[in-house]
Amino acid sequence: MSLIQSIKITPIAFRDPPLLNVYGIHEPWALRTIIELETEQGIYGLGESYGDEQTISQLRAVVPHLIGLDVFCLNEIRLKIEQSVALPDPESGLEIAPGTLGATTVPRIFSAFEVACLDAAGKITGKPVYELLGGKVRDEVSYSAYLFYKYDCHKFSNDAWRDKWGEATTAAGIVKQAQQMIDEYGFKSIKLKAGVFEPQQEIAALEALKIAFPNHPLRIDPNGGWSVATTQALLNQFGNGLLQYLEDPVPTKALMSEVSKMTDIPLATNMCVIGFFDLPQALALDAVQVILSDHHYWGGLKATQALAQICNSWDIGLSMHSNSHLGISLMAMTHAASTIDNLTYACDTHYPWQEEEVIKGGKIRFTNGAVALTDKPGLGVEIDQEALAQLAENYRTCGIRSRDDVSEMKKYQSDWTGQVPRF
Amino acid sequence: MSLIQSIKITPIAFRDPPLLNVYGIHEPWALRTIIELETEQGIYGLGESYGDEQTISQLRAVVPHLIGLDVFCLNEIRLKIEQSVALPDPESGLEIAPGTLGATTVPRIFSAFEVACLDAAGKITGKPVYELLGGKVRDEVSYSAYLFYKYDCHKFSNDAWRDKWGEATTAAGIVKQAQQMIDEYGFKSIKLKAGVFEPQQEIAALEALKIAFPNHPLRIDPNGGWSVATTQALLNQFGNGLLQYLEDPVPTKALMSEVSKMTDIPLATNMCVIGFFDLPQALALDAVQVILSDHHYWGGLKATQALAQICNSWDIGLSMHSNSHLGISLMAMTHAASTIDNLTYACDTHYPWQEEEVIKGGKIRFTNGAVALTDKPGLGVEIDQEALAQLAENYRTCGIRSRDDVSEMKKYQSDWTGQVPRF
Repeated sequence: MSLIQSIKITPIAFRDPPLLNVYGIHEPWALRTIIELETEQGIYGLGESYGDEQTISQLRAVVPHLIGLDVFCLNEIRLKIEQSVALPDPESGLEIAPGTLGATTVPRIFSAFEVACLDAAGKITGKPVYELLGGKVRDEVSYSAYLFYKYDCHKFSNDAWRDKWGEATTAAGIVKQAQQMIDEYGFKSIKLKAGVFEPQQEIAALEALKIAFPNHPLRIDPNGGWSVATTQALLNQFGNGLLQYLEDPVPTKALMSEVSKMTDIPLATNMCVIGFFDLPQALALDAVQVILSDHHYWGGLKATQALAQICNSWDIGLSMHSNSHLGISLMAMTHAASTIDNLTYACDTHYPWQEEEVIKGGKIRFTNGAVALTDKPGLGVEIDQEALAQLAENYRTCGIRSRDDVSEMKKYQSDWTGQVPRF
Repeated sequence: MSLIQSIKITPIAFRDPPLLNVYGIHEPWALRTIIELETEQGIYGLGESYGDEQTISQLRAVVPHLIGLDVFCLNEIRLKIEQSVALPDPESGLEIAPGTLGATTVPRIFSAFEVACLDAAGKITGKPVYELLGGKVRDEVSYSAYLFYKYDCHKFSNDAWRDKWGEATTAAGIVKQAQQMIDEYGFKSIKLKAGVFEPQQEIAALEALKIAFPNHPLRIDPNGGWSVATTQALLNQFGNGLLQYLEDPVPTKALMSEVSKMTDIPLATNMCVIGFFDLPQALALDAVQVILSDHHYWGGLKATQALAQICNSWDIGLSMHSNSHLGISLMAMTHAASTIDNLTYACDTHYPWQEEEVIKGGKIRFTNGAVALTDKPGLGVEIDQEALAQLAENYRTCGIRSRDDVSEMKKYQSDWTGQVPRF
């Protein structure tokens, strides 16, 4: 028996660069929640999830129902969460982060605790989490260089902090950012967050990337920022193997299905397929050819494996999505991805954009664009309580309680609406 | 590390009553294979699978590739099997037991070893298999009374053995059989194997069962023995809640889809959906509303959980199929079923029809039609080497090498063809 004695939920905030997207711009602080679970025997397990107020309150609301349950009894924990969590409007939450929508409540809240339980179960059995998931099929997991158009610094912050990446608002700036990121991390694939400028300008950036990095597969993600007509007009330019896949050009399953009929370029999504409940319609419509999994809202690491089985059965590609996150999430992603043989694309990660950490030893190292698995028990990371206290203090003082890229962008451009599609 | 040092594959035979089905009649001996895996530390794990020659040779062929692998590294074991097993014609194998078809080779062979690895992993960690699968959501798993038309005894056997069930070739005989089985096992649901007599005679048996056991949900399974027209003509009689579900009235996904359009009675299958590869077409056609899972050919206990996730997402019911089997399979089924909250139907089992066992303590006890989970490590059963030796000796001497109900029936009826649909 490995009963849960306590669970600590700590909202944190860490610095985030002024990254641009179709909705607006990242605020100076990104929010996240750290879950620290402890068993009656004093074994702890770590989890990391979204930091919006709705998620925090849902996490806190279910904690009392989980005390006394066994960390190995994940199915019972999921049922307890189903029974105890209030289900908000499916559309409530952050449009910009579909994983926070009300529709994902049970899998999202379960996931945070599942990862912490698996971490503890690994420590109890002396096994890495990937072995509790059936074992790894690769020794390292590759990630992609996740490029953003960005400003040099936050123009509406009292804080003098500046990231190390500089401005990137042109094709040349994007190529420079890619070079800087690839030099440091060794990434072998590139993703460009788009929907920021006129599509032709963004395609010019892709073409410049293709020239600078001819062997790096490219992806572009306008976050549903284009209309079907705009997308259709661009498809020719994506031909000739420019793109590995086209992520969320348009915002719904029905519209993705329309685009899908026009092209052989695989369409990927993390926006219109955000849970198992979306699959029947999406697959019936042939709306997407690549699903970007994300254990944070699909229901955890085992659910990610079940999604992989579905992708395999329906001949759908599988990649991995990311929001701003720290090392606990990175290792959870890495453990899950290492066990899934049909996860053949390099996973997305915002990790290079973050400078802070909550784990001992600081930031996790990438080699050749990949994170290596070790044989350390659990997730293989430990919490740095001093760092956690600092990030929790950031949360208390930063003034942000839910991510709002639209309002932040209005500071730069008063007529900004953040409405999609933009182009 | 928990490395596999040896794997012993033992074909066995045990007595089987003269049970009738659409293909013919059970032979006097049923075949099975017992898998005994041992780790370098001397921990063993048990598995049980089909006993046809094709399965036995496939199991034996992959054994050398598995020596030295870790019992926790199931994904690697599956990949090794994918790489090392010869893939026969997808249609090869036994039509009567679709789980043995060539199309199921990798999942079927993997499953036998997965169960043995999970049993060993449970013993290593001191945890029941269900805890390695995320924990149970019920403390016992309900099974159904699996009724067969049958003769009193095998008429073409040199052996004087007689089962305890007597003849059942009429409605009264079926009700008597049900009473005997329910008295002994306490089953709360009833399944009638059909396709043996004219449909009207079998429906009369169902109606007699409904009168005798008004609170027991009923199912009928003619094994694809009816035409669409015959099935259509019968649907009225199945109305008024006579049936919980109608299993494989017709033999293909396309024909099941035709029937499905004619009725609200859920259609179940273990014949036209036998692996993940069948799901896209089956779900697109709305061919079935209940899938009868079977870890022996779906790819093991974790694959059964993935199937459950799919059934949940597509709003498909989930039940469990059975061939003739002994206690290792029964416990594997029970452990898996205990972890799946949407497995809401009582599972099928042939277990009451078998008198012999290979596990210590003899036959597993049912209470109120259910098998209880214990907190014993692994599957919770141990091999009885003396019993295993006897059943292996039966295999060597019984003369049967692949189940052949058609040829056995020809002994009774020289013009028998075993062709479906029969009616």
